Amino acid sequence: MNLLLREIRSSPILWLLSFVPVVFIVRKLWPEAHTMLFVISILAIVPLATLLSSATEAVATKTGDAVGGLLNATLGNLTELIIALAALSAGQYTLVKASIAGAIVANSLFMLGASFVLGGLKYHTQAFNRESARLQTGLLFLAAIAIMTPSAIVDAQGSSPPFIQQLSVALSVLLIGTYALGLLFSLWTHREFFSGAAHHEAVGDIWPIGLALAVLSGVTVLVALTSEIFVESVQEAAKTFGMSPAFVGFIVVALVGGAAEMVSAFSGARKDRLDLSVGIALGSAAQIALFVAPVLVLLSYVIGPTPMDLRFWRGAVIMVFLATITAFLITSAGRSAWFVGVFVLMVYLVFAMTLYLLPPATL
Amino acid sequence: MNLLLREIRSSPILWLLSFVPVVFIVRKLWPEAHTMLFVISILAIVPLATLLSSATEAVATKTGDAVGGLLNATLGNLTELIIALAALSAGQYTLVKASIAGAIVANSLFMLGASFVLGGLKYHTQAFNRESARLQTGLLFLAAIAIMTPSAIVDAQGSSPPFIQQLSVALSVLLIGTYALGLLFSLWTHREFFSGAAHHEAVGDIWPIGLALAVLSGVTVLVALTSEIFVESVQEAAKTFGMSPAFVGFIVVALVGGAAEMVSAFSGARKDRLDLSVGIALGSAAQIALFVAPVLVLLSYVIGPTPMDLRFWRGAVIMVFLATITAFLITSAGRSAWFVGVFVLMVYLVFAMTLYLLPPATL
Amino acid sequence: MNLLLREIRSSPILWLLSFVPVVFIVRKLWPEAHTMLFVISILAIVPLATLLSSATEAVATKTGDAVGGLLNATLGNLTELIIALAALSAGQYTLVKASIAGAIVANSLFMLGASFVLGGLKYHTQAFNRESARLQTGLLFLAAIAIMTPSAIVDAQGSSPPFIQQLSVALSVLLIGTYALGLLFSLWTHREFFSGAAHHEAVGDIWPIGLALAVLSGVTVLVALTSEIFVESVQEAAKTFGMSPAFVGFIVVALVGGAAEMVSAFSGARKDRLDLSVGIALGSAAQIALFVAPVLVLLSYVIGPTPMDLRFWRGAVIMVFLATITAFLITSAGRSAWFVGVFVLMVYLVFAMTLYLLPPATL
Repeated sequence: MNLLLREIRSSPILWLLSFVPVVFIVRKLWPEAHTMLFVISILAIVPLATLLSSATEAVATKTGDAVGGLLNATLGNLTELIIALAALSAGQYTLVKASIAGAIVANSLFMLGASFVLGGLKYHTQAFNRESARLQTGLLFLAAIAIMTPSAIVDAQGSSPPFIQQLSVALSVLLIGTYALGLLFSLWTHREFFSGAAHHEAVGDIWPIGLALAVLSGVTVLVALTSEIFVESVQEAAKTFGMSPAFVGFIVVALVGGAAEMVSAFSGARKDRLDLSVGIALGSAAQIALFVAPVLVLLSYVIGPTPMDLRFWRGAVIMVFLATITAFLITSAGRSAWFVGVFVLMVYLVFAMTLYLLPPATL
Repeated sequence: MNLLLREIRSSPILWLLSFVPVVFIVRKLWPEAHTMLFVISILAIVPLATLLSSATEAVATKTGDAVGGLLNATLGNLTELIIALAALSAGQYTLVKASIAGAIVANSLFMLGASFVLGGLKYHTQAFNRESARLQTGLLFLAAIAIMTPSAIVDAQGSSPPFIQQLSVALSVLLIGTYALGLLFSLWTHREFFSGAAHHEAVGDIWPIGLALAVLSGVTVLVALTSEIFVESVQEAAKTFGMSPAFVGFIVVALVGGAAEMVSAFSGARKDRLDLSVGIALGSAAQIALFVAPVLVLLSYVIGPTPMDLRFWRGAVIMVFLATITAFLITSAGRSAWFVGVFVLMVYLVFAMTLYLLPPATL
Repeated sequence: MNLLLREIRSSPILWLLSFVPVVFIVRKLWPEAHTMLFVISILAIVPLATLLSSATEAVATKTGDAVGGLLNATLGNLTELIIALAALSAGQYTLVKASIAGAIVANSLFMLGASFVLGGLKYHTQAFNRESARLQTGLLFLAAIAIMTPSAIVDAQGSSPPFIQQLSVALSVLLIGTYALGLLFSLWTHREFFSGAAHHEAVGDIWPIGLALAVLSGVTVLVALTSEIFVESVQEAAKTFGMSPAFVGFIVVALVGGAAEMVSAFSGARKDRLDLSVGIALGSAAQIALFVAPVLVLLSYVIGPTPMDLRFWRGAVIMVFLATITAFLITSAGRSAWFVGVFVLMVYLVFAMTLYLLPPATL
């Protein structure tokens, strides 16, 4: 408990934890104050996500390299998964899909680009592990193909729900299987090529395993409860701010869900440990595409009102494809400078601006 | 003759040659037994293709480097060409086009991926000639552009047959010309960059030139006759097996046509001669795209009921484009390990699964 | 003046300057002779463009590295800009857009490919600066994304003019900003990576700054006047030659506008200074995409009859995207040989043939 308090004192973002009780109180007293609930739930999710990420890290450190890598690889995007589950059980499938596609794009463009800029402003040029970046962009590319192919072929004819459902389940199993084999490859048979890149920042003080597990499960519950409020309020609040629903799902939800990882990626870049930043950004994007998204499709049979398929809105497919190609172009050199980051951020800005100006009734 | 028998004894696949007479007998007795004819004709074509490939190889070895390379480069896909010609003269243009696109994708994804997996299970990492892979993927990319551009532009307006026919002939001439210049480049002016990669496996015993030429012409006739039966039976048989016509043309016909080359590519990978495997897989894909396909367009004026154009089904265009990009991403490193192969196979599986589940009445 | 005359004597192309007075006389006497005016205005623009390029170069040399680079980077495509302005003020927006897209494709495919062929016929292999090529293709890729994203998303719904106008202005500002930061990067903070690549050929004799500035402003006026005649006559003349309007805008206008730079790029390739050729070709394509095109969008509010947006014809978007990918594939090796040039030219030929055969009433 002492350690936990020290952690909170050392990381200023964790002061935001005080918003966690506030969000539940406000919900109780003013259930219709959507805009306020939206803002407070964001302020509560960000520190919870940071804590969740530290706890996962602490458990991973305790359990050794391979198991720890596996834990990070499956629980690393727990926040995104919980938020998406809240939207899934509410039947808000367009929000689920927008937040998945948005998280892939936010990680592979915004997180990567901002890391390059932050690192590049301090160091003239920076190097990073090309093999690792190549593996992750390859996985991303496979996921992009898996969501492009059915959409491209089915557009050609009318939509035939049973066929699309079968295909979505089959593709989901294939993506999860490939992700598992990729972990076997990078954590086991060829781990010497990927050393250093896959691991997140170590926690300042090593937490005892009991505390870590307790925090992990307790915070998961809190994130789940807060996410429910966030998902309920997000569409109403968006109207107040004049944002299109596409912009909310694709940009706002994705950035909130990835806040904790961004903190780690940016701090890695400032310490000239760009391997870490690229590993978090692309690894997280690949994890969402090959693990979180297909798991949500499969879980929709259990917890969703109707099955969810893997077809995405055409604009989302194009953005995921272009983000993947951009990440490949950019990481193939294994070196970075500030302008490389600016370039990647600009691609993200093109997408964000287009979605922001998009009139409602799309997505 | 002795040599030929020894060849048959040493290669177990050639025992299947006994199915060649069977297919003609069954055709005579039960002309309506489509499913049986389909299975037996596949069992007959595979060993004939192997023999055809050995004979081409033997003639190529006898005639020296440049001429031999040229022979391999033009006759290397004789089986695919003969099967497509059988479908062409029967006026089955959708089958012709599906088998062309399918052969490009099967070679650049399935053959390449399976070679990487088979090699990777035996060797930790394997290296191959990057220059050669770059040339072949470049040629493939040009072919992909040549079939994308007209389809992309013409979709925008209604179809105007005379314009498309002119464009198809012009693009066909351009592709064949580029292929010829590519041979001049890789076999003559800059052959030092491509040594070792373009040549298929040498035949165990060197056949005398007379025998090789006799086998080449005799087997060509047999493949032509068997292909005719195969093409007649394939659509009916597909219904029995519950396969979509898209799946049959794109996957089944393409894998049957390429069986002989797969045997060589896989055996190369198991012997750590990955240059050979990559050369066969990508070289063969480029040959089909830049030589076989345009030759079929031009021949359709002579032997087809009506002229055939170069427009492809939208799904086929996307698959060829994505296969080309995948081959480029994968070969740009010049190194391979088992997971690289798994990744490429998964891309192929995405396509195969989508086509398998596709309801009929597409393609 | 003496220097100017010596320049004309040394460069045979400048003899064409005698067509400048001819074009104005013909215009006065036979205002309806569109075909003749079209031919003569081309013959007049080419030497004027060469002179304009020399004058820019001379001023750039006088003003030192950074300012000179900036001058080249903004005035390097003055001819294209003036021709497009003439079409803009005449309200011919499809011609403006076709000439922009056509100039990007002509520079990154035709100019690059022909340089590789011309260099490759003389030298076995040639090397060039990869970093510089990577930066320019990266910028081109961003521009391609900026024109793809809105077209892709807006197609999905009906066209909503106010939204598209806002987005076009926002994207234009973003592209110009990125271009400016790219100049800061390549001319200032990281100029050591790009040395030699960004500068055009030095003028034989260094012109005095006064003469250079006088030529610069005088010739700009002449190009503007001649361009007006060219734009007036181009559509009528195209009908006489049986060319589709798409072909005229995309191919003819683009090649006329880039003639001066092609002369420099080709002469660089023949002297084994391929850095120069690649720098001119890709730098010029990036400049048109990130500077000329957005400036035209913004200027349309001032001088055009109605605002112009950044949406392009679907075929043009695809061609720009494929040209960018081709330039990336080709320059990632940092080496060239004759066949690489043939390959790039063939991609250009595919586009040119498709546009040539395209029936009117498209674009």
